[in-house]
Amino acid sequence: MSVREHLPPIGYAGRIGRVRHRATDLGFDGVLVTDLIDIRWLTGFTGSSGTLLITPDRAVFVTDGRYRDRAADEFAASGAEADIVAGFTKLEQQQRLDDAAHNLSKIGASAASIDHESWTRLATRLPIAPITTIVADERRAKDEGEVARIELAAEFADAALAEVAPLLGYGLTEADVRTELEYRMRRHGADGPSYDTIVASGPTNAARPHHEPTDRLIVEGDTVVIDVGALVDGYHSDMTRSYVIGEPTAQQREIYDLVLTAQLAGLSAVTAGRRAAAVDTACRTLFEGAGYRDWYLHSTGHGVGLQIHEDPYESPVSEQTLVAGDVVTVEPGLYRVGFGGFRVEDLVEVESDGCRVLTQSPKDTPCLPSPPTT
Amino acid sequence: MSVREHLPPIGYAGRIGRVRHRATDLGFDGVLVTDLIDIRWLTGFTGSSGTLLITPDRAVFVTDGRYRDRAADEFAASGAEADIVAGFTKLEQQQRLDDAAHNLSKIGASAASIDHESWTRLATRLPIAPITTIVADERRAKDEGEVARIELAAEFADAALAEVAPLLGYGLTEADVRTELEYRMRRHGADGPSYDTIVASGPTNAARPHHEPTDRLIVEGDTVVIDVGALVDGYHSDMTRSYVIGEPTAQQREIYDLVLTAQLAGLSAVTAGRRAAAVDTACRTLFEGAGYRDWYLHSTGHGVGLQIHEDPYESPVSEQTLVAGDVVTVEPGLYRVGFGGFRVEDLVEVESDGCRVLTQSPKDTPCLPSPPTT
Repeated sequence: MSVREHLPPIGYAGRIGRVRHRATDLGFDGVLVTDLIDIRWLTGFTGSSGTLLITPDRAVFVTDGRYRDRAADEFAASGAEADIVAGFTKLEQQQRLDDAAHNLSKIGASAASIDHESWTRLATRLPIAPITTIVADERRAKDEGEVARIELAAEFADAALAEVAPLLGYGLTEADVRTELEYRMRRHGADGPSYDTIVASGPTNAARPHHEPTDRLIVEGDTVVIDVGALVDGYHSDMTRSYVIGEPTAQQREIYDLVLTAQLAGLSAVTAGRRAAAVDTACRTLFEGAGYRDWYLHSTGHGVGLQIHEDPYESPVSEQTLVAGDVVTVEPGLYRVGFGGFRVEDLVEVESDGCRVLTQSPKDTPCLPSPPTT
Repeated sequence: MSVREHLPPIGYAGRIGRVRHRATDLGFDGVLVTDLIDIRWLTGFTGSSGTLLITPDRAVFVTDGRYRDRAADEFAASGAEADIVAGFTKLEQQQRLDDAAHNLSKIGASAASIDHESWTRLATRLPIAPITTIVADERRAKDEGEVARIELAAEFADAALAEVAPLLGYGLTEADVRTELEYRMRRHGADGPSYDTIVASGPTNAARPHHEPTDRLIVEGDTVVIDVGALVDGYHSDMTRSYVIGEPTAQQREIYDLVLTAQLAGLSAVTAGRRAAAVDTACRTLFEGAGYRDWYLHSTGHGVGLQIHEDPYESPVSEQTLVAGDVVTVEPGLYRVGFGGFRVEDLVEVESDGCRVLTQSPKDTPCLPSPPTT
């Protein structure tokens, strides 16, 4: 995929050092990183097994034997400064870890991502203590290489949707649309879908924000919600577009316009330094003012990166503040059984004076260019 | 998908009772089931959030508000006898759980599937204690409805492979083959791929048992390993077939024959009452006798069900015994950088006097019917 060769590199340099610095400030002389997403962000490692121990003067990555070569290749590519030690049995891996940790007095570990059995076993050998999510905090602001991958993923989803949306209403089921979207994202170059694609149609299914595609045939008069994203080098995209099959009714047009207006208001509220909850408020206030408070069933957005849902969260109760480099969704929607639903979602990069929209699919109208004449 | 309407039902009745009985025998008066796969097996619930508490005289399922309707539908369909209580906030859900547990004195919970932070919080409110994997044990022997779904998933993978294998060597990359297989499994009716499809080709990639598909073009002379499965109602299938592009060399033919001979020996070793390790031994002994000990890089198989890897494990160190109704893989392979690799894998149902092979794709030769004439 030649397009990938021109992507700017991901800035791995300094990441381990920044996490070490945060841990030191919190009184820890070591950090045990067990979450594989955190490990990928710190080192570029993509395998399914491994633990990274950060000490005051080095970092050691312990993995199992089958990942020795992959770890060496990926650490060389990222430039992550860590020693790789591979153990072929679990006992060997434990011993390598204990060796690397033997001088440490307080090792921070994430109690939320280690199961209780493993934690209990680890605690008999190492001076671990719960630490806050310092790696997740560092992961929030995306660098140029990360944003470029998210943007490319968004392009793949846009390209697939541009091909498939015109087919809506021509005899496809929800599951058919899902299958075509995921296939075409891959054909365009995506590593895969970013999450289980949502295709929700008609008076009942489209009223469920997290509907899973069924064999329901999409027919004239339906509202249709399509929520689709792609993966590039582990980075996700996320987008929703909504449609009406055939000529929209007055009510469909009115509600779609309201959702779109709210979504534009949400976008206008996104800027570094503002509370994430303010983006939710911008959308919710509009819906409440129009009498549709009960039709809004979820919060307005979330961060996107190596995880499809990550900090910050734009919900009414969020206490987080947006920072430049956050990549977040803005995705208000209205849903009612009997009516169906609409959601419009863009992915945006938070900037110091607003945001940059990464999603390119048109959203100005729920009507497709050529409504079916069944 | 009309083929699904004729599948025999899954036997949910009695499952909660059997788990309760096992727990009572171990001295627990309650079981807190938190693993979503276990919950699905017990109740049919497919959502992403929920906890099932089994007490001496009832079962209570606590979930969040958005899953109230789905839980009601799915429990009605499965006939699972449990009260559903939905709480819209985490605090509400906690309180519902505490209410249901208030008379219990010792509640078994899986320390391996609850994170340490959650465990610590739970332990302040409920008398939880670690319990062995009693649900996973009960999940092992599949009933008629479960086997039928696994078999249908295997059929979807067979059908996709039958379409795609003849295209190998005609200008497709590994990633292309993966994408076509996953697309075609869905078109045949699968809910999706059972795991990340492996397409590994040529002297380096095919030598890696867990290779991830790349943009490498598959060319004449390559060995190609394709490991692909489908999903039906949460049940997985798993199969591997291996090929040579063009006319095999003498060495390729010899090693393929050895892998196939080992795989048939492995199948012959599968029967209820035998140790799972014996299946591994049957394959490994043949490889060692032929001087290929170092080419065999993994164990011989694993159970398959609602998880792609589950009990029992057919490894040299396994202490498990096969039981009738286990569904397991038999998948020996040989790998060497410079040569490439071959693996042959069937999915089988363990029976009292042998096994029934669920995989139908041909495996008698690595050659494709029409080798390319590039």
